Amino acid sequence: MNCNVPTDIVFSFTGFAHRGGRTDTHHDGWGIAFFEGAGVRHFVDHQAAIASPIAELIKRYPIKSTNVVAHIRKATQGQVALENCHPFVRELWGRYWVFAHNGDLKEFAPTLDGAFRPVGNTDSELAFCYLLQELRRRFGDSQPGRDDLHAALQELVREIAAYGTFNMMLSDGTALFAHCSTKLCYIVRQYPFTAACLSDEDLSVDFSQVTTPNDRVAIIVTEPLTNNESWTHFEPGELKLFVDGSPLAL
Amino acid sequence: MNCNVPTDIVFSFTGFAHRGGRTDTHHDGWGIAFFEGAGVRHFVDHQAAIASPIAELIKRYPIKSTNVVAHIRKATQGQVALENCHPFVRELWGRYWVFAHNGDLKEFAPTLDGAFRPVGNTDSELAFCYLLQELRRRFGDSQPGRDDLHAALQELVREIAAYGTFNMMLSDGTALFAHCSTKLCYIVRQYPFTAACLSDEDLSVDFSQVTTPNDRVAIIVTEPLTNNESWTHFEPGELKLFVDGSPLAL
Repeated sequence: MNCNVPTDIVFSFTGFAHRGGRTDTHHDGWGIAFFEGAGVRHFVDHQAAIASPIAELIKRYPIKSTNVVAHIRKATQGQVALENCHPFVRELWGRYWVFAHNGDLKEFAPTLDGAFRPVGNTDSELAFCYLLQELRRRFGDSQPGRDDLHAALQELVREIAAYGTFNMMLSDGTALFAHCSTKLCYIVRQYPFTAACLSDEDLSVDFSQVTTPNDRVAIIVTEPLTNNESWTHFEPGELKLFVDGSPLAL
Repeated sequence: MNCNVPTDIVFSFTGFAHRGGRTDTHHDGWGIAFFEGAGVRHFVDHQAAIASPIAELIKRYPIKSTNVVAHIRKATQGQVALENCHPFVRELWGRYWVFAHNGDLKEFAPTLDGAFRPVGNTDSELAFCYLLQELRRRFGDSQPGRDDLHAALQELVREIAAYGTFNMMLSDGTALFAHCSTKLCYIVRQYPFTAACLSDEDLSVDFSQVTTPNDRVAIIVTEPLTNNESWTHFEPGELKLFVDGSPLAL
């Protein structure tokens, strides 16, 4: 989720969490990270989201954020363990970066220089460490502008996606990058807001009742979360940058 | 807390959390990190612990861990904000490191090479980044043995403590380093276990009912948490290393 004003993710997370063991088979852990200013609230659990007390808390407690990255895991590489749960968090350029991956990379074994090393044993965390290492190698000690960052990431994700499926999200709390390798779609909710109905549970919300005309919220997912809205599909290979609830034209 | 078997911290955290706004003035945020294998569950909140829904969850939900670092904050440097809440987490040598600081450093302005940079603006996070940077500079890309690490940390904490008060804890999930600048004390609970009574709330627990004879748990705090046990005070300048619930002789 990427928004122009701090927004809670209770509605979307409720549907999403059902896929972690009930309506889908992603039951090998889950996680979510909320940016709040430069800080991050990071929750991970190797229990299925549907059975996790922490997921229950997040469904009840409306944490407001402009950038949220959530993930439910189906273990393809790396055992079911806390250190293998997405999203992963690292610091680069004095900011936290949050990363989540959907997919599977085969024989991806980049050379790491030691600046960022995986703690667990997933292909995903390895890809994240490699991304940050290469960004730091290219741009040195100061964060580049968004255009330069997008261009560099476009090259890097193409290189990584050559090893398999690499749908991914990356955020530093000011913007959200989303890369589609095989499947990713998004919706932008803005004025005039309407009602939305979850696909995974009998729950709907009328956003016109809980928003102001200036609010704008982008939700980016591998599978649409609602069944009465029109989701826009990414093209394979596309890397979109979301800022303030909108995809930027780059 | 440092233990030889995964142990929940519900009892100690209950007393500790009361100091975050009720029995003490540390009401500018709080945080706790639990290692679970190589993974970390990290909870931070800029609300007072006594008013935090997440602190409530942790009091009810017995997360078991062998290394836990918790902190309640009284802001001395850096505003009340999520990014300024301890404990801080960074990755070094493919492990997560968790750090919390009690005290205040004046005019501490080390040169950072960019490998670890503060996200917030506390003296504490700056000291943590400097510690990790210097450890990496000394030992390169592979983690040294505990004796070498202790010796290096002893030098580094002495250097940092010259700038003010630097009671601190640092853990990589396999061991816990605790440095006393002005105040720190610990207790080792082991067989035969007895009952303990919190100082900050009318609550006691008979550990003999909830332990096995092999369990061993060290609790390290700035102020004793119980009023019927004998806590051992650190010497100023002392850096102790706790492994499997005991301080090591080094």
